[in-house]
Amino acid sequence: MNKRPRSEAELLALISRELPTVDAGVLTGIGDDCAVLQPVAENASLELLKTDALVESVHFANGTPWHKVGWKALCRPLSDIAAMGGSPRHALITIAAPSSWTSSDWRTLYRGIGKAAREFGVSVVGGETVRSTGPLFLSVTLTGRVSARNLKLRSGAKPGDLICVTGKLGGSLKSGRHLSFQPRVAEGRWLGGEAAVTAMMDLSDGLGSDLPKMAIESSCAFRLALDSLPRHSSCSVSAALYDGEDYELLLTVNPRLWPSLQSRWDLASPKLSLTPIGVMLPYGEESTPLLDGYDHLAPKRPKR
Amino acid sequence: MNKRPRSEAELLALISRELPTVDAGVLTGIGDDCAVLQPVAENASLELLKTDALVESVHFANGTPWHKVGWKALCRPLSDIAAMGGSPRHALITIAAPSSWTSSDWRTLYRGIGKAAREFGVSVVGGETVRSTGPLFLSVTLTGRVSARNLKLRSGAKPGDLICVTGKLGGSLKSGRHLSFQPRVAEGRWLGGEAAVTAMMDLSDGLGSDLPKMAIESSCAFRLALDSLPRHSSCSVSAALYDGEDYELLLTVNPRLWPSLQSRWDLASPKLSLTPIGVMLPYGEESTPLLDGYDHLAPKRPKR
Repeated sequence: MNKRPRSEAELLALISRELPTVDAGVLTGIGDDCAVLQPVAENASLELLKTDALVESVHFANGTPWHKVGWKALCRPLSDIAAMGGSPRHALITIAAPSSWTSSDWRTLYRGIGKAAREFGVSVVGGETVRSTGPLFLSVTLTGRVSARNLKLRSGAKPGDLICVTGKLGGSLKSGRHLSFQPRVAEGRWLGGEAAVTAMMDLSDGLGSDLPKMAIESSCAFRLALDSLPRHSSCSVSAALYDGEDYELLLTVNPRLWPSLQSRWDLASPKLSLTPIGVMLPYGEESTPLLDGYDHLAPKRPKR
Repeated sequence: MNKRPRSEAELLALISRELPTVDAGVLTGIGDDCAVLQPVAENASLELLKTDALVESVHFANGTPWHKVGWKALCRPLSDIAAMGGSPRHALITIAAPSSWTSSDWRTLYRGIGKAAREFGVSVVGGETVRSTGPLFLSVTLTGRVSARNLKLRSGAKPGDLICVTGKLGGSLKSGRHLSFQPRVAEGRWLGGEAAVTAMMDLSDGLGSDLPKMAIESSCAFRLALDSLPRHSSCSVSAALYDGEDYELLLTVNPRLWPSLQSRWDLASPKLSLTPIGVMLPYGEESTPLLDGYDHLAPKRPKR
């Protein structure tokens, strides 16, 4: 009876049983990149809510420069807002730090947060600083908005849709890109305005773990062209699938509308690639076999 | 150069220098009980945003039953929403727990969260669970709304206004009330609708620390009638001033409108007292002398 939850999914299920039913204004709650909330006023944009936490020695190594930790802390939920087609608005930042932290430590951390806030138009409107006897802990809540017409969920993919990714995959942890990546905020907002895009999410756990989540939400299977995965230099296919922390956008596109989307993308984002890597299949067909991805609560990665 | 920040105020000042200017839609940012945000659509309510964190062995003792920790984690920001005259809406809950946590631990914690969510009409719409090598850490973000007419800030008190508190003060930690208190959500909403109420905040650090904050925000001094403080049984005046964690509402009332407010309060909230405890004075007059309150970042309480 008194076991540890075996997976994040099992934990989510047991948590949900203890909570009241959400109200009718909650369009998507736990399960997509962000919560999507009906606005109070008619004709207003939908509200997006996302929270994301970083723990020292779990999400970044001891000794990581604090300004990079600050950048990453805000850019991770920015990537989630981008994945809904939305625009970020306000952030609340909670930090638990050892009482030995100096003014210079605080300043350096907030320099990274401030740089990301300026670059992506976020207002930091509150938060909290507390003492901790444990490792550094940061929790960022980010709000955003998106018109109902532009909202992209994980669940919108249809059999036959092309599977595409922005940029290149793999090697994020080894190269340090997981600390300095650019969340695809402008690109996500642009793709949100495209009717050709049927589903979208950001790649945080790795394509090999995130694509199956999108497929499940959309009740589809999928076939990946593994040779066509856009990879960072000296990254294997396995690295592109499983390294994680790419923070690129994964999306599905109506194949009939792909040629027109592709040419407009090339004009709008000439410096970032958008690559077809596979196709969604009808539910029940066999998907390209993949290992399970990283689960934050699993004691260790399951061996296969 | 490389010193620890001496106070939360000093830390806030150095953090603020690193952050971009907030946008014009932010009515109050860092500094009041909640951030207050202009709605996107006209005629809509104002949006309230609050985040609050609990750290094991800092905010609650090791060995505290998890359902009480869950209750407290949601009820603390509920008290802040109440203090603005607002209604709570959505919560995001982030928990960093040791990987040894069992399903029963998680369930018990969320039972407390769920009980508070049901009782005060909150939808839990997201969050995150992460592993930590440190103490249990909970961070709750709560959204709310309030009409512009009903919004109560800390800064609205005028010289001559009566200072009032709901309920009784003191002994919260000793009695365990800090784990089982009732946030004054219905009462705060009711007081928000009363034009007689000129300023409001919740008492978390203790009257002796919180009233000076309200006075500073309102550019007033204050005189307290220390004998008239409503105290829990066997609590001294000093306990009522400095124990903290009362989670009662502190408010100022236009004295001309007090008799009418008082009689309507007694009808609306027959079980909870509303007690005048002092008066706001013009800026520059001498306030009742008080010790400084608890500062979460100060290495220890300053001795006087």
